[in-house]
Amino acid sequence: MDSSAEKTDKKETGRLETFSDGVFAFAITLLVLYLKDPTANSSGSLFQGLLNQWPAFFAFVTSFMTILIMWVGHHEMFTYVRHIDRGFLFLNGFLLFFVTLTPFTTSLVADHIISSDSHTAAAVYASSFLLLSLTWGIIGRHIFRKKLLLASVDAESFARTQTRGAFIGLGFYVLALALAFFSGIASVVLILMVAVYYAVGPTSQR
Amino acid sequence: MDSSAEKTDKKETGRLETFSDGVFAFAITLLVLYLKDPTANSSGSLFQGLLNQWPAFFAFVTSFMTILIMWVGHHEMFTYVRHIDRGFLFLNGFLLFFVTLTPFTTSLVADHIISSDSHTAAAVYASSFLLLSLTWGIIGRHIFRKKLLLASVDAESFARTQTRGAFIGLGFYVLALALAFFSGIASVVLILMVAVYYAVGPTSQR
Amino acid sequence: MDSSAEKTDKKETGRLETFSDGVFAFAITLLVLYLKDPTANSSGSLFQGLLNQWPAFFAFVTSFMTILIMWVGHHEMFTYVRHIDRGFLFLNGFLLFFVTLTPFTTSLVADHIISSDSHTAAAVYASSFLLLSLTWGIIGRHIFRKKLLLASVDAESFARTQTRGAFIGLGFYVLALALAFFSGIASVVLILMVAVYYAVGPTSQR
Amino acid sequence: MDSSAEKTDKKETGRLETFSDGVFAFAITLLVLYLKDPTANSSGSLFQGLLNQWPAFFAFVTSFMTILIMWVGHHEMFTYVRHIDRGFLFLNGFLLFFVTLTPFTTSLVADHIISSDSHTAAAVYASSFLLLSLTWGIIGRHIFRKKLLLASVDAESFARTQTRGAFIGLGFYVLALALAFFSGIASVVLILMVAVYYAVGPTSQR
Repeated sequence: MDSSAEKTDKKETGRLETFSDGVFAFAITLLVLYLKDPTANSSGSLFQGLLNQWPAFFAFVTSFMTILIMWVGHHEMFTYVRHIDRGFLFLNGFLLFFVTLTPFTTSLVADHIISSDSHTAAAVYASSFLLLSLTWGIIGRHIFRKKLLLASVDAESFARTQTRGAFIGLGFYVLALALAFFSGIASVVLILMVAVYYAVGPTSQR
Repeated sequence: MDSSAEKTDKKETGRLETFSDGVFAFAITLLVLYLKDPTANSSGSLFQGLLNQWPAFFAFVTSFMTILIMWVGHHEMFTYVRHIDRGFLFLNGFLLFFVTLTPFTTSLVADHIISSDSHTAAAVYASSFLLLSLTWGIIGRHIFRKKLLLASVDAESFARTQTRGAFIGLGFYVLALALAFFSGIASVVLILMVAVYYAVGPTSQR
Repeated sequence: MDSSAEKTDKKETGRLETFSDGVFAFAITLLVLYLKDPTANSSGSLFQGLLNQWPAFFAFVTSFMTILIMWVGHHEMFTYVRHIDRGFLFLNGFLLFFVTLTPFTTSLVADHIISSDSHTAAAVYASSFLLLSLTWGIIGRHIFRKKLLLASVDAESFARTQTRGAFIGLGFYVLALALAFFSGIASVVLILMVAVYYAVGPTSQR
Repeated sequence: MDSSAEKTDKKETGRLETFSDGVFAFAITLLVLYLKDPTANSSGSLFQGLLNQWPAFFAFVTSFMTILIMWVGHHEMFTYVRHIDRGFLFLNGFLLFFVTLTPFTTSLVADHIISSDSHTAAAVYASSFLLLSLTWGIIGRHIFRKKLLLASVDAESFARTQTRGAFIGLGFYVLALALAFFSGIASVVLILMVAVYYAVGPTSQR
């Protein structure tokens, strides 16, 4: 009975992963809808139009990288989780909420990062990742406190790694939010740097 | 042979779950396309524009929460189901039909909830969830009557829980529909409350 | 070695199913994007606008039902298939091509079914399902001729069922195409009837 | 323990495949959103409008075919891979980045292939597939160098096949990029030919 319970757990985790992967994959693909043909509303050559549209590409790359590292992190977190409870389901739903918002906040950055509204656009963008990062930390605590980990995983070490990771992410996004009030572009560049850091940084050895 | 039949059943259930998860995940992510850059059609600051756009965020959150709890319920229902027949496939398709409609009905609420058409928008919104909830109840009956449950599940208890859940949902959405003719906003607030109730309410202990 | 080969086959089938399910689920969900807020471009009440928009709902329901029965058929076909080859992969890709086209052809029906262009819109709509149906028949032949069936499946009976199903589908869609030149609406109604027939008709006992 | 490690690897591969399949499936389905009702912005019959819109269909078919063969190649590559590391995750993410871009570059081709900007549109289109192809080659090298292959796979033969495939693809796309500066249409036709070549060509025996 114990082993069958373990199997049932696995199956539940699997379906949550499928649903989450769907939302991640879909959100990351929807980003492209905000890249528009630059000649639709203006004259001038296509080449010039694409160059002028660099904020849209800049925002696209930043969001793509950020969603990708978050998907990788999500993927890694699930390799340690044996069992999911309802609290986990809803915390995960909260996390997906902010993932889903990303195409919208990205479009705000694309449209406004070189206008007088760049502070607002960057602040909204940074805030949404800040809340995502906060949710991430809460999920890590939840997994640890509710003992949802695989028996083979060292719970203390998991908690330490998760907490440190969440603090680093939170710290960076708080900084990006503060920076948004001085320079919108600098804030978005910092967010891109965070994604690059997670992609190649010290947490990457597994 | 019995155990191989059980395995085949599992596999079929799995694919229906994948398809359904896809539709749930896409529908929940498509909601974001109706959040628009508020400065596209008006002057004024981005910040003011985002504040003025609160009905769109309100509708977005309500629909996101509602689809999420429905996905959780769908997920839980499938943990009890051993076998699917054609009737189940089409009832499930009917359920997905209303899930798919949600981004459209949400956009009606977003555009009209503070206009003179708020009654119509809220009525359409509540009706689509009402029909979804009705389909849900019919699926529960179908599973019970056609004996599609896992052998380890107490069928009577399953039927009682499903019936009660469906009645509560139906009751709330009928109320929301009636309320729509008096106040569109009150109706949508009630629908949001239903989602919160299912998320934290008494049916949540598993 | 034999049983491990069988397992590898299963895994490949599984991934093709996941990809196909994704395309089916996504195409069926994208249909909703062509339902537009009717008051965006006209004055008048929302209620009147929704009523006037009945061709969009009619096309939406027809396409939703048709994609759904095709997904069910796809699902059933795969329960008989043990092994996939490259030809199968590309034929399946061809089938998905027409599934993917459906949101576009549906929008043509929605926009033109009550205009003077209704013949063209219905003819394009019927043609795309006709080609889909043709591809379906070719896939059935391919599975039979290349012996891709599970050992437990009676190949002759599979071929007979597939051929009959494909002929019925082809016949109906040829009729719908011919009808399009006389009445666009009648053609689309026939296509809706085909979907209902497959949903409840004699091929449905399994 | 060895066999359980193998199983854990499998599970991780599976989830990366699910995520990738999601992105491939969404990107291929999103292409349809750039097929527009031709009568929305012009007078004239629907039939004439559809004929005039041939560049959109031409671009649609080319991109659909190209993404499809890439998905097939991705699918085949994964049948040889036992294990994924972080480098693989990010290289795969880079590959998906260009897959995601395809609906946008396709829309540029659809809008400009018969205008004076056809050179730019085709060059952007060819470049994105060139970079995709380059990423593909790097992934092949990575798999070989990091020994991520299944024990049953002949690594040398895998490396040779991958390298040859990558060189052929790269060569064709470099040619298509060069051709773009002389004739946009010729460049896109070549890209369509590449897809057809991979679909029916000598690499197709498995």
